[in-house]
Amino acid sequence: MTQTKATSVTPTRADDYAGWYQAVVRAADLAEPAPVRGCMTIKPWGYGIWERIQAILDRRFKETGHRNCYFPLFIPLQYLQAEAEHVEGFAAEVAMVTHHRLANVGGRLQVDAPLEEPLVVRPTSETIVGEAFSRWIQSHRDLPVLINQWANVVRWEKRPRIFLRTSEFLWQEGHTAHATEAEAVEETGRMLGIYREVAEDALALPVIAGRKTRREKFPGAVTTLCIEAMMQDGRALQSGTSHFLGQNFARAAGIRFTDADGAIRLPHTTSWGASTRLIGALIMTHGDDDGLRLPPAVAPDQVAILPVLRGTPEDAAVLARCDEIAGRLRRESWRGEAVRVTIDRRPGSGSAKRWDWVRKGVPVIVELGARDLAGGKVIAWRRDRLRDGKAEAGLDEFVAALPGRLSEIQAALAAEARGWRDTRLRDAATLDEARALLGDGGAEGYRSGAGFVRLPWSGSEAEEAALAETGVTIRCLVPAEGPAPCAVTGVATTDRAILARAY
Amino acid sequence: MTQTKATSVTPTRADDYAGWYQAVVRAADLAEPAPVRGCMTIKPWGYGIWERIQAILDRRFKETGHRNCYFPLFIPLQYLQAEAEHVEGFAAEVAMVTHHRLANVGGRLQVDAPLEEPLVVRPTSETIVGEAFSRWIQSHRDLPVLINQWANVVRWEKRPRIFLRTSEFLWQEGHTAHATEAEAVEETGRMLGIYREVAEDALALPVIAGRKTRREKFPGAVTTLCIEAMMQDGRALQSGTSHFLGQNFARAAGIRFTDADGAIRLPHTTSWGASTRLIGALIMTHGDDDGLRLPPAVAPDQVAILPVLRGTPEDAAVLARCDEIAGRLRRESWRGEAVRVTIDRRPGSGSAKRWDWVRKGVPVIVELGARDLAGGKVIAWRRDRLRDGKAEAGLDEFVAALPGRLSEIQAALAAEARGWRDTRLRDAATLDEARALLGDGGAEGYRSGAGFVRLPWSGSEAEEAALAETGVTIRCLVPAEGPAPCAVTGVATTDRAILARAY
Repeated sequence: MTQTKATSVTPTRADDYAGWYQAVVRAADLAEPAPVRGCMTIKPWGYGIWERIQAILDRRFKETGHRNCYFPLFIPLQYLQAEAEHVEGFAAEVAMVTHHRLANVGGRLQVDAPLEEPLVVRPTSETIVGEAFSRWIQSHRDLPVLINQWANVVRWEKRPRIFLRTSEFLWQEGHTAHATEAEAVEETGRMLGIYREVAEDALALPVIAGRKTRREKFPGAVTTLCIEAMMQDGRALQSGTSHFLGQNFARAAGIRFTDADGAIRLPHTTSWGASTRLIGALIMTHGDDDGLRLPPAVAPDQVAILPVLRGTPEDAAVLARCDEIAGRLRRESWRGEAVRVTIDRRPGSGSAKRWDWVRKGVPVIVELGARDLAGGKVIAWRRDRLRDGKAEAGLDEFVAALPGRLSEIQAALAAEARGWRDTRLRDAATLDEARALLGDGGAEGYRSGAGFVRLPWSGSEAEEAALAETGVTIRCLVPAEGPAPCAVTGVATTDRAILARAY
Repeated sequence: MTQTKATSVTPTRADDYAGWYQAVVRAADLAEPAPVRGCMTIKPWGYGIWERIQAILDRRFKETGHRNCYFPLFIPLQYLQAEAEHVEGFAAEVAMVTHHRLANVGGRLQVDAPLEEPLVVRPTSETIVGEAFSRWIQSHRDLPVLINQWANVVRWEKRPRIFLRTSEFLWQEGHTAHATEAEAVEETGRMLGIYREVAEDALALPVIAGRKTRREKFPGAVTTLCIEAMMQDGRALQSGTSHFLGQNFARAAGIRFTDADGAIRLPHTTSWGASTRLIGALIMTHGDDDGLRLPPAVAPDQVAILPVLRGTPEDAAVLARCDEIAGRLRRESWRGEAVRVTIDRRPGSGSAKRWDWVRKGVPVIVELGARDLAGGKVIAWRRDRLRDGKAEAGLDEFVAALPGRLSEIQAALAAEARGWRDTRLRDAATLDEARALLGDGGAEGYRSGAGFVRLPWSGSEAEEAALAETGVTIRCLVPAEGPAPCAVTGVATTDRAILARAY
């Protein structure tokens, strides 16, 4: 596949990594900024990726006993206020509904009918779920309660970036209540484990699983677990979080149950979420200077068949053959599901149409013209190896090999991402060493990023805050095999802080 | 199955139809009113029904070439204003976001940071989709655009009723743009056809498909098509609408395309929607005095297996056998999907547990105790024929017969609903006759409702408004075989108005 400057993405990763990201979002036709600042419109190819992520996560949630619900978009202010740390964490970014009507005043529409109490557009739903749990849960026999919802949430962002940080985004939020602390802690870990597996196995994102420091945890949580992925500029992207909430929200919402011994107790609750931000992680992990590259597990279509149409009578035969090939491929299965195939029936041939699909990151592209038809051959490209991945094959051979090829692509993208991450995950013993590895942030960009530094840590919140002033944060704490002296206190610790600049 | 007053729903349909509806929502654990007036929380069993409806509709939308997107929740006021009839239709019920922060003022949280321009929480998305289409569509080659979104919408309701009319509800809204009027009109009909088929085939709701009068159409549409279902009190429930929007929204949003002949034209657009209201239709069509009855196609679980657990060592063997039966049933398929089975593992036995599932409307209930285990038998009830549907069968026989039994239940519920509807769909020739059949609304309630009256109609909007003052509205117009004199004007017409009281 010959590449011309006109068809690849501008700017390149090396030229301007942030600009490249925005360009890929456009070039792959994933999403666009909405007219309301900070919001986005997710277009069909982007939404198709989200539908795949939803399906995979939803299956895992149901297999682990969770059921879906839907809680209201609007939260009474008093609920948000009930947990002090929680409301403090979200007050600066909540959209408020204050009126429920428009009135025509002298030909101009104005807000009318003020609400008695303004309503919060949910930034997350712990407080309103807590209110429901306080009615649903009476006895230890009602526990555990294991639910999830797929919903939109709103957090007014000062510096929005599409998929990564938008004022409205789509996510799932799980909420559970348990009779004992041990069960809730176990659930918190189980759900982080699911995020980790789905990130690594389906999204081909190598992640580091750990726990947040007190400074970085969810407002109101006792402990926040997270997975952190490394983008191609070395920065971290938090890609899923699971919170052990202790009895904080149970206390705030008045959730109580009668235990087997007759005692009245507060349950322990958890919450956990992953969002459309994962699409940003896919772009920044697997994208290249030709656009997006999608792991087959989350690609809306895994194969794009491109008929070469010349406006001649032969076109009908070419299209018929494409339908036949698509039908045969759809009868193949990969990872327990039918292979997903699309035919691009738009008029035209050659490179313009092909580059559209390259930019979208479809894992396999098949081109079929009248000549190939006569020769019984198909020409196919692997998106992960665009320069050397072109192959000509007989049809039967191509169809039979396709599921294996999808596995190869999935594995190749994962290995490439892991290789990059591993070269940029480095150990330091002191803060000076860490600073030297992480640099001053001035040389950021594609493959010039400093990556992650692993550092023995038992520092205080103040020491962490001082670090944050240099633009570096503790993404999470992970356990190490043996103790080492903390980089700031010198006290022996088995905790290692993962330091990075972050999105 | 012996029935005691304590276990059936109170009040009965005959005693208080509206009260019965609320009682079934509670008894089947479908949903509950939210703390914010007019909003609801959809609980797992209710949401499970919605997931089934979503899956069935989504498959049909994709088969007909539509792809899912996501548009922002917030709409700038100016967009809503661009289509005059549209904004007039929604101004009285829009929730408005005016601030994006909370501030602590003397220990009390208050709204802070006013927006320059207040934002409308979407009541529907024609205007914001139109803005996107104006950028997406340049050439006739970009058409048709066929998209759909699954979303929450907000319409501030004065008289909320759970599922039927809530301030926030879940729905799908399709939006399409076409080069020609004929194509858009065809699309409008195609999507109504899908609603009709899904209502009849999956939800077992007999519906009348027709078009709305000018008075009842969607604000801004040229034509609104609809399906109308009859509840057991004879009232109509609008269950899906499909709008031909002509060039109204294209003009308002400035959508233009260069046609094949080089001319600049406005496309013709459509929109179509169905919502969580369909769950209300299911309740009021199929529910009985014992609770909900669910058509197997939309039941979250089609079979509930209830082990009789006595806290003895035999329980383990009973549970193991239940797992085995569930496994065998899940390997059976019905309508192309694995049979959906749940096991109720809660301690206890007998009627309390069984009545829980009766009220939830699960199509088939299986009870299994140690004695049945020894005898190699299962005892099963059909929810559609609770009083005479109890059967004892050998396990192999029961498993093999299950898919056929689900078909029977699906058909029986549809036939029962159709039978009731048909007896209450009556013809009148004059307004006096119609009024006599429809009564004064005083004797409403279960099976005392007047139902639908079909009346020759070519009346004006004023004549329709006069009719509406009596509490009766024209649900839709349907074509008749031959002409008859209009009941108000005497002019020959092939239009028949379907008159009813409506939800």
